[in-house]
Amino acid sequence: MPSENTVFIGKKETMQYVLALVAQFHSSSEVSVKARGKNISRAVDVVEITRNRYVPDAKVRTIEISTEKLTGEDGKTANVSSIEIFLTKEGAGAGA
Amino acid sequence: MPSENTVFIGKKETMQYVLALVAQFHSSSEVSVKARGKNISRAVDVVEITRNRYVPDAKVRTIEISTEKLTGEDGKTANVSSIEIFLTKEGAGAGA
Repeated sequence: MPSENTVFIGKKETMQYVLALVAQFHSSSEVSVKARGKNISRAVDVVEITRNRYVPDAKVRTIEISTEKLTGEDGKTANVSSIEIFLTKEGAGAGA
Repeated sequence: MPSENTVFIGKKETMQYVLALVAQFHSSSEVSVKARGKNISRAVDVVEITRNRYVPDAKVRTIEISTEKLTGEDGKTANVSSIEIFLTKEGAGAGA
Protein backbone atom coordinates (compact mmCIF):
# COMPACT_ATOMS: atom_id res chain seq x y z
CA MET A 1 0.00 0.00 0.00
CA PRO A 2 1.65 3.30 -1.05
CA SER A 3 1.90 5.62 1.92
CA GLU A 4 -0.18 8.34 0.23
CA ASN A 5 -3.17 5.95 0.52
CA THR A 6 -2.53 5.31 4.21
CA VAL A 7 -4.07 7.19 7.13
CA PHE A 8 -1.76 7.16 10.18
CA ILE A 9 -3.62 7.34 13.49
CA GLY A 10 -2.07 9.55 16.16
CA LYS A 11 -3.28 11.45 19.20
CA LYS A 12 -5.81 13.78 17.58
CA GLU A 13 -9.57 13.49 17.95
CA THR A 14 -11.07 10.34 16.41
CA MET A 15 -13.34 12.32 14.08
CA GLN A 16 -10.37 14.09 12.48
CA TYR A 17 -9.09 10.71 11.26
CA VAL A 18 -12.60 9.72 10.15
CA LEU A 19 -12.68 12.84 7.97
CA ALA A 20 -9.22 12.02 6.59
CA LEU A 21 -10.30 8.47 5.77
CA VAL A 22 -13.52 9.59 4.08
CA ALA A 23 -11.47 12.05 1.98
CA GLN A 24 -8.98 9.30 1.12
CA PHE A 25 -11.80 7.16 -0.29
CA HIS A 26 -12.61 9.97 -2.73
CA SER A 27 -9.20 9.56 -4.38
CA SER A 28 -8.66 5.81 -4.00
CA SER A 29 -10.77 2.67 -3.60
CA GLU A 30 -7.92 0.96 -1.69
CA VAL A 31 -7.00 2.62 1.59
CA SER A 32 -5.24 1.48 4.74
CA VAL A 33 -5.26 2.70 8.33
CA LYS A 34 -2.12 2.27 10.47
CA ALA A 35 -1.58 2.74 14.19
CA ARG A 36 0.84 1.79 16.95
CA GLY A 37 0.50 1.17 20.68
CA LYS A 38 -2.48 2.73 22.42
CA ASN A 39 -3.65 4.32 19.17
CA ILE A 40 -4.62 0.86 17.88
CA SER A 41 -8.01 1.13 19.64
CA ARG A 42 -8.61 4.48 17.96
CA ALA A 43 -7.76 3.01 14.54
CA VAL A 44 -10.51 0.41 14.95
CA ASP A 45 -12.94 3.16 16.04
CA VAL A 46 -12.02 5.24 12.97
CA VAL A 47 -12.66 2.33 10.61
CA GLU A 48 -15.94 1.32 12.28
CA ILE A 49 -17.34 4.87 12.38
CA THR A 50 -16.35 5.45 8.74
CA ARG A 51 -17.97 2.22 7.58
CA ASN A 52 -21.12 2.57 9.66
CA ARG A 53 -21.86 6.26 9.01
CA TYR A 54 -20.04 7.63 5.97
CA VAL A 55 -18.77 4.97 3.54
CA PRO A 56 -21.16 2.01 3.85
CA ASP A 57 -19.69 0.24 0.81
CA ALA A 58 -16.22 0.14 2.43
CA LYS A 59 -15.17 -3.37 3.44
CA VAL A 60 -12.29 -4.63 5.57
CA ARG A 61 -10.09 -6.64 3.20
CA THR A 62 -7.57 -7.83 5.73
CA ILE A 63 -5.98 -6.81 9.03
CA GLU A 64 -2.31 -7.33 9.91
CA ILE A 65 -0.67 -6.98 13.32
CA SER A 66 3.04 -6.90 14.01
CA THR A 67 5.70 -5.74 16.46
CA GLU A 68 7.94 -2.76 15.66
CA LYS A 69 11.18 -1.86 17.41
CA LEU A 70 11.33 1.85 18.21
CA THR A 71 14.51 3.60 19.34
CA GLY A 72 14.00 6.42 21.84
CA GLU A 73 16.06 9.58 22.19
CA ASP A 74 18.10 7.82 24.89
CA GLY A 75 19.08 5.11 22.40
CA LYS A 76 17.01 2.44 24.12
CA THR A 77 14.77 0.26 21.99
CA ALA A 78 11.21 -0.64 22.88
CA ASN A 79 8.84 -3.09 21.27
CA VAL A 80 5.50 -1.64 20.25
CA SER A 81 2.55 -3.43 18.65
CA SER A 82 1.15 -2.10 15.40
CA ILE A 83 -1.91 -2.70 13.25
CA GLU A 84 -2.68 -2.04 9.60
CA ILE A 85 -6.30 -2.32 8.46
CA PHE A 86 -6.68 -2.64 4.67
CA LEU A 87 -9.97 -1.34 3.30
CA THR A 88 -11.55 -1.54 -0.11
CA LYS A 89 -14.57 0.28 -1.46
CA GLU A 90 -16.83 -1.96 -3.50
CA GLY A 91 -18.41 -0.74 -6.69
CA ALA A 92 -15.63 1.78 -7.26
CA GLY A 93 -15.02 2.28 -10.97
CA ALA A 94 -18.00 0.10 -11.82
CA GLY A 95 -20.44 2.98 -12.08
CA ALA A 96 -22.09 1.99 -8.81
CA MET B 1 -15.12 -20.25 18.19
CA PRO B 2 -16.55 -21.79 21.40
CA SER B 3 -16.19 -19.34 24.27
CA GLU B 4 -14.06 -21.77 26.32
CA ASN B 5 -11.33 -21.32 23.69
CA THR B 6 -11.57 -17.51 23.85
CA VAL B 7 -9.48 -15.22 26.04
CA PHE B 8 -11.37 -12.00 26.88
CA ILE B 9 -9.11 -9.01 27.44
CA GLY B 10 -10.07 -6.70 30.31
CA LYS B 11 -8.29 -4.23 32.58
CA LYS B 12 -5.75 -6.55 34.22
CA GLU B 13 -2.03 -6.52 33.52
CA THR B 14 -1.08 -7.54 29.98
CA MET B 15 1.08 -10.45 31.19
CA GLN B 16 -1.87 -12.05 32.98
CA TYR B 17 -3.63 -12.42 29.63
CA VAL B 18 -0.43 -13.66 28.01
CA LEU B 19 -0.30 -16.43 30.62
CA ALA B 20 -3.97 -17.25 29.99
CA LEU B 21 -3.37 -17.43 26.23
CA VAL B 22 -0.29 -19.65 26.61
CA ALA B 23 -2.32 -21.98 28.87
CA GLN B 24 -5.16 -22.00 26.34
CA PHE B 25 -2.80 -23.23 23.63
CA HIS B 26 -2.01 -26.27 25.80
CA SER B 27 -5.61 -27.43 25.52
CA SER B 28 -6.49 -26.25 22.01
CA SER B 29 -4.70 -25.44 18.76
CA GLU B 30 -7.44 -22.94 17.80
CA VAL B 31 -7.76 -19.99 20.16
CA SER B 32 -9.21 -16.51 19.87
CA VAL B 33 -8.62 -13.25 21.74
CA LYS B 34 -11.48 -10.76 22.12
CA ALA B 35 -11.52 -7.18 23.35
CA ARG B 36 -13.65 -4.05 23.26
CA GLY B 37 -12.90 -0.33 23.31
CA LYS B 38 -9.58 0.75 24.79
CA ASN B 39 -8.67 -2.86 25.57
CA ILE B 40 -8.24 -3.51 21.83
CA SER B 41 -4.64 -2.21 22.01
CA ARG B 42 -3.90 -4.59 24.88
CA ALA B 43 -5.33 -7.52 22.90
CA VAL B 44 -2.82 -6.88 20.11
CA ASP B 45 -0.01 -6.63 22.68
CA VAL B 46 -1.09 -9.95 24.24
CA VAL B 47 -1.05 -11.72 20.88
CA GLU B 48 2.28 -10.23 19.80
CA ILE B 49 4.04 -11.00 23.11
CA THR B 50 2.66 -14.55 23.11
CA ARG B 51 3.79 -15.21 19.54
CA ASN B 52 7.20 -13.58 19.88
CA ARG B 53 8.22 -15.02 23.25
CA TYR B 54 6.19 -18.06 24.24
CA VAL B 55 4.34 -19.77 21.35
CA PRO B 56 6.44 -19.11 18.23
CA ASP B 57 4.43 -21.56 16.11
CA ALA B 58 1.20 -19.61 16.73
CA LYS B 59 -0.08 -17.81 13.66
CA VAL B 60 -2.78 -15.19 13.20
CA ARG B 61 -5.45 -16.88 11.07
CA THR B 62 -7.75 -13.88 10.71
CA ILE B 63 -8.81 -10.72 12.52
CA GLU B 64 -12.36 -9.38 12.66
CA ILE B 65 -13.51 -5.97 13.84
CA SER B 66 -17.08 -4.92 14.52
CA THR B 67 -19.27 -2.51 16.44
CA GLU B 68 -21.29 -3.64 19.47
CA LYS B 69 -24.15 -1.78 21.10
CA LEU B 70 -23.83 -1.73 24.88
CA THR B 71 -26.63 -0.65 27.20
CA GLY B 72 -25.50 1.15 30.35
CA GLU B 73 -27.16 1.12 33.76
CA ASP B 74 -29.00 4.30 32.80
CA GLY B 75 -30.58 2.51 29.84
CA LYS B 76 -28.62 4.51 27.28
CA THR B 77 -26.89 2.64 24.48
CA ALA B 78 -23.36 3.31 23.31
CA ASN B 79 -21.49 1.98 20.31
CA VAL B 80 -18.18 0.35 21.12
CA SER B 81 -15.65 -1.15 18.71
CA SER B 82 -14.54 -4.74 19.21
CA ILE B 83 -11.86 -7.03 17.83
CA GLU B 84 -11.49 -10.79 17.68
CA ILE B 85 -8.10 -12.23 16.74
CA PHE B 86 -8.21 -15.88 15.66
CA LEU B 87 -5.02 -17.82 16.25
CA THR B 88 -3.92 -21.27 15.22
CA LYS B 89 -0.91 -23.27 16.37
CA GLU B 90 0.84 -25.05 13.53
CA GLY B 91 2.11 -28.57 13.93
CA ALA B 92 -0.47 -29.30 16.63
CA GLY B 93 -1.46 -32.95 16.59
CA ALA B 94 1.30 -33.73 14.07
CA GLY B 95 3.83 -34.67 16.72
CA ALA B 96 5.70 -31.40 16.23
